[in-house]
Amino acid sequence: MERIVVPAREGRGARVRAGQRLRIADVEGQQCADVWAFSAEDVSEYASAEHTRAQVARLFPRSGEHFVTNRRRPILLFEQDTSPGVHDMLIAVCDLERYRQLGVQGWHPNCLENLRQVMAGWGIAQFEVPQPINFFTNVPPQLDGTLVFLPALSRPGDYVQLRAEMDCYLVVSASPQDMIRINAEEPTALALELLD
Amino acid sequence: MERIVVPAREGRGARVRAGQRLRIADVEGQQCADVWAFSAEDVSEYASAEHTRAQVARLFPRSGEHFVTNRRRPILLFEQDTSPGVHDMLIAVCDLERYRQLGVQGWHPNCLENLRQVMAGWGIAQFEVPQPINFFTNVPPQLDGTLVFLPALSRPGDYVQLRAEMDCYLVVSASPQDMIRINAEEPTALALELLD
Repeated sequence: MERIVVPAREGRGARVRAGQRLRIADVEGQQCADVWAFSAEDVSEYASAEHTRAQVARLFPRSGEHFVTNRRRPILLFEQDTSPGVHDMLIAVCDLERYRQLGVQGWHPNCLENLRQVMAGWGIAQFEVPQPINFFTNVPPQLDGTLVFLPALSRPGDYVQLRAEMDCYLVVSASPQDMIRINAEEPTALALELLD
Repeated sequence: MERIVVPAREGRGARVRAGQRLRIADVEGQQCADVWAFSAEDVSEYASAEHTRAQVARLFPRSGEHFVTNRRRPILLFEQDTSPGVHDMLIAVCDLERYRQLGVQGWHPNCLENLRQVMAGWGIAQFEVPQPINFFTNVPPQLDGTLVFLPALSRPGDYVQLRAEMDCYLVVSASPQDMIRINAEEPTALALELLD
């Protein structure tokens, strides 16, 4: 097993093969993980929140179900979830403008730059920025449609296990959000574990 | 006022100026309207469901609130809503693959082709396909996250009124969905009305 530490507020990635299993683990607990998967063959095909929701008729897949691409092909099988099962696919990737609107002056680490940096490491500069799969992220919609930003419920060591259904570029960003308390007290590290 | 009929199952568009008001009207009732807005200056900036949800902390804006772009700039002000107020920004644009999965053999009209056709009319062949703003579309999330596909609640003549906050390309597709009964008995026409 290869274990890639995703330091607090940073991003890391891995090129995974079809059939390969991987885990995204919350090392210290209550840490949100922004995740993207792009087809290695053509990065204009990627895990799509809106196509996945239509496919599973639910806001988020359950273990045993697939995340599908914008061409409605399975890209990741959601195999296992040891966390309380609270995840999000509604909230956009955080960026500098988001932090500016939340009152930050100057630079702030952000998942969009983390994503771009990881993709640049593969020589990929041009790509669409999809709605991320926000594992462990606790922003439940209320019956009136209101979204409430709450601390993640994941415990130290909790993980989600995925199986790649096609060769893909997988990116994980440890959310640096500290203006809204979705990461509880402080942003912490994640781990990306590549099995088999 | 200019009134553009969007025939049942088809798409139409208009290039609108900053400050211009427009209405999307459900002519016969219970008809879903897939809508996109792209900045006329740079179509890689567009009305984004996920950025709008984060901005308004709700699944869908209320009248008086903005749809924002993937750069978090206001693009459309949601000015008025005479419908029962049930709209969607969760479900992906329908495409041939969606209909194939729903049991259709061969071609079926679809909102993705409608979008591409309208954009092609402006000479725009390359663009990202955003999550549409699905006015009048009734797919409410339940508390357990399940999405239920229900017939639209809009009545004949109901409309939403928007004000463009930047010059943009606006596309409206009259949903041809007839495999899931979101358009009640049968897909019907919409109208795109350009005011002032």
